Amino acid sequence: MTELWLIGIGTGHPGHLTLEGRQAIRDARLILVPQKGAGKEDLADLRLAMAREAGATARIVRFAMPVRDPALPYQDRVARWHDEIAEAWQAALAGTEVDGPVALLVWGDPGLYDSTLRIAERLRPAPRLRVIPGITALQALTAAHAIPFNTVNGPVTVTTGRRLRDHGWPEGAETVVVMLDGACSFDTLDRPDLQIWWGAYLGMAEQILEAGPLAEAGPRIKEARAAARARHGWIMDTYLLRAP
Amino acid sequence: MTELWLIGIGTGHPGHLTLEGRQAIRDARLILVPQKGAGKEDLADLRLAMAREAGATARIVRFAMPVRDPALPYQDRVARWHDEIAEAWQAALAGTEVDGPVALLVWGDPGLYDSTLRIAERLRPAPRLRVIPGITALQALTAAHAIPFNTVNGPVTVTTGRRLRDHGWPEGAETVVVMLDGACSFDTLDRPDLQIWWGAYLGMAEQILEAGPLAEAGPRIKEARAAARARHGWIMDTYLLRAP
Ligand SMILES: C[S@@+](CC[C@H](N)C(=O)[O-])C[C@H]1O[C@@H](n2cnc3c(N)ncnc32)[C@H](O)[C@@H]1O
Ligand SMILES: C[S@@+](CC[C@H](N)C(=O)[O-])C[C@H]1O[C@@H](n2cnc3c(N)ncnc32)[C@H](O)[C@@H]1O
Repeated sequence: MTELWLIGIGTGHPGHLTLEGRQAIRDARLILVPQKGAGKEDLADLRLAMAREAGATARIVRFAMPVRDPALPYQDRVARWHDEIAEAWQAALAGTEVDGPVALLVWGDPGLYDSTLRIAERLRPAPRLRVIPGITALQALTAAHAIPFNTVNGPVTVTTGRRLRDHGWPEGAETVVVMLDGACSFDTLDRPDLQIWWGAYLGMAEQILEAGPLAEAGPRIKEARAAARARHGWIMDTYLLRAP
Repeated sequence: MTELWLIGIGTGHPGHLTLEGRQAIRDARLILVPQKGAGKEDLADLRLAMAREAGATARIVRFAMPVRDPALPYQDRVARWHDEIAEAWQAALAGTEVDGPVALLVWGDPGLYDSTLRIAERLRPAPRLRVIPGITALQALTAAHAIPFNTVNGPVTVTTGRRLRDHGWPEGAETVVVMLDGACSFDTLDRPDLQIWWGAYLGMAEQILEAGPLAEAGPRIKEARAAARARHGWIMDTYLLRAP
């Protein structure tokens, strides 16, 4: 593999794919796809359906996704996992003739809370990297609610559920957008003055939206989230909090 | 006008357009385009070329862009300007038969440091709003440098040059992305430990990239920026700063 393309495909809406992304899917000679894992069938299928729909003629090669070691501390666990994924890519390609660019279809944008770039940096010999931007969950969220990301000239903090739980509301923040939150961490804030705009399955047929003052919308969101998660077996959600 | 579509078109690369955005451009019946202003010809042309390329059959209606009143304080000046733009849209449409969705082609994503949504909220009667996400300058920047937006589980502050000058490095920040900076405000930071990734005309033929330790790359960027600005008559640039 001398050339590796990370193609951002957006966050579930087939129309999120960019013209550049579609062309790259067509030009790729091999597409690396994670093997389906329990509960993620919908997403694995969606990725492949998108590639077919885009006109891919590439060979599809699957790799087995390693499992994180829960015994390790967080940062080590993530680093070790990235090493193992890089090995899994190389194992999947071993013995395969690669006669052109290899592509990975990356959910959303390859730069935003995604490990693909960090995994790619571990490859030896290092392939030439091309990153194709994609629509993120943040843009899918603000578009679905038809709200601006920022206030006029205002800053925005992008963070994770884990950090919001561990560090609270970021000092001096006005707008905070939270991703990777499996635990409705807005609930730990004790900031009844905040407004929340929440979305799950953004851009997908299952899309759910909720918004309002955190004190009122928070309980509604927790309930909707639990019910949707039970129904679908998985959930992806994101939210924006704004201080007055 | 009963329906208004804000279509994110990306930040200069024709391939940034999404399939959803392209379809919306085709389905729109009228496209509102700002009249060319001095020095912005390239961008006005690029927007119309993109619409034509996408297969637009909409009628093109131009509106005169009002000028901000420098005598007013910043927030008032912006609010007044938004009022005037809303009036300019309505004036341009007055007497025009509108038989379907009206569209505005918005640079990047309509939610990110863009006033179109705020202007649209001023319209009376209020049209139904549809927002179509677009690739932002932030994604164009990280993709061009093939770098992640965030560190593992790390937060990112998105801010403006004005705020960086007025408030300095945000308390506790790890990654800061700066837009709308006409003055190389990184220069006011006195943080020789920072790394910078800078890009101008991202996604366009004129694209320039610079990166490195701020102490070394900063002066190079200031020089490259001034030269490019003189050559093209305008510049758009964005950068990401990361603390160790
Ligand atoms: C590993 S991160 C990947 C983010 C992705 N690279 C992007 O650009 O949006 C996964 C998180 O993104 C958010 N997310 C991704 N797709 C989403 C969707 N369709 N609806 C809501 N949230 C989504 C959720 O917060 C989820 O926990
Ligand atoms: C008014 S804001 C609009 C941002 C846009 N809505 C987006 O999503 O990127 C304009 C700022 O975006 C950044 N920008 C937009 N296009 C750019 C490009 N092609 N290259 C570099 N920076 C760009 C610059 O920081 C510029 O000052």
